[in-house]
Amino acid sequence: MSNNDQFTFQRAKVENIKDVLAMIQELADFEKMSNGPQLTEEDLIRDAGLSGEQECCEVYVLVDNATKLAIGYSICYKAYSTWQGRYFFVEDIYVRPEHRKRGAGRRIFLEVSARAVELKCPRLEFNVLEWNPARKFYESLGAVDLTAKEGWHYYRVEEQQLSQLANDLASSKS
Amino acid sequence: MSNNDQFTFQRAKVENIKDVLAMIQELADFEKMSNGPQLTEEDLIRDAGLSGEQECCEVYVLVDNATKLAIGYSICYKAYSTWQGRYFFVEDIYVRPEHRKRGAGRRIFLEVSARAVELKCPRLEFNVLEWNPARKFYESLGAVDLTAKEGWHYYRVEEQQLSQLANDLASSKS
Repeated sequence: MSNNDQFTFQRAKVENIKDVLAMIQELADFEKMSNGPQLTEEDLIRDAGLSGEQECCEVYVLVDNATKLAIGYSICYKAYSTWQGRYFFVEDIYVRPEHRKRGAGRRIFLEVSARAVELKCPRLEFNVLEWNPARKFYESLGAVDLTAKEGWHYYRVEEQQLSQLANDLASSKS
Repeated sequence: MSNNDQFTFQRAKVENIKDVLAMIQELADFEKMSNGPQLTEEDLIRDAGLSGEQECCEVYVLVDNATKLAIGYSICYKAYSTWQGRYFFVEDIYVRPEHRKRGAGRRIFLEVSARAVELKCPRLEFNVLEWNPARKFYESLGAVDLTAKEGWHYYRVEEQQLSQLANDLASSKS
């Protein structure tokens, strides 16, 4: 059964960015990291390539054709692997809770997969929290949990520590 | 004590790419994934921006000043977070086994941190295998294991499955 008449998946326009930021906050709240999001509307408009500068990411919205409202979004970008070159990284996929169970998440996942293929990216990658029930959904679509299968751990150096390391380097050279 | 006279950290040139590919293979062998690397010399020259096309990644080598040989490398690229925008992702850091214990790994890590700061990236991120002893080294430099701390799992959809999903999308629209 086709659901292509229910939704339209499209690049976000300037007028969608406020909605996308609201959904980024909803996702962070769900992830119990409410203080995470710090981007302003201006930042995301610029980074999405909507103000003339080179884009840093691709921002998409899923629009409900009945209401013309954005009910979900995805943000992706081109990443790089030393094994296969270019790949596609999905930073976020989100569907507003009241619009779930209608195939919206599946539609977004298929659309970003098709975009990866279009970009000649031989992989799609993303990170999911262990307790997030969406893991089962992603696995049902063929995504492989490399943390479980191969033991990959995801590391981060935060801003303050980065500055410290950059200072340490400068000191070692002086 | 300064070690800046031991090494030079620099962007890879065309004549370094063969060495970098050899080291990519050495790292894959160490990771017990010898069949991983598939990039050709021509691919990496192009993707490093060395043949006039836009670069997909930044390729660096650490040169031993005494011998002028590349003894390590790093490949990084600009990634994107919906919380803080641009960040810096380190795909690989590697030092040849016979050149370890001389501060080479630390030098590369500090250099890529300084590059992240230069690019106004407020985060550095990377993935490490659970059994890799380098995890302790990265943690000693202030990197946080987000898989352990927050429960992040790293997922991948491989090429064949991606094509299948793209086909599923096309069928649902036809």
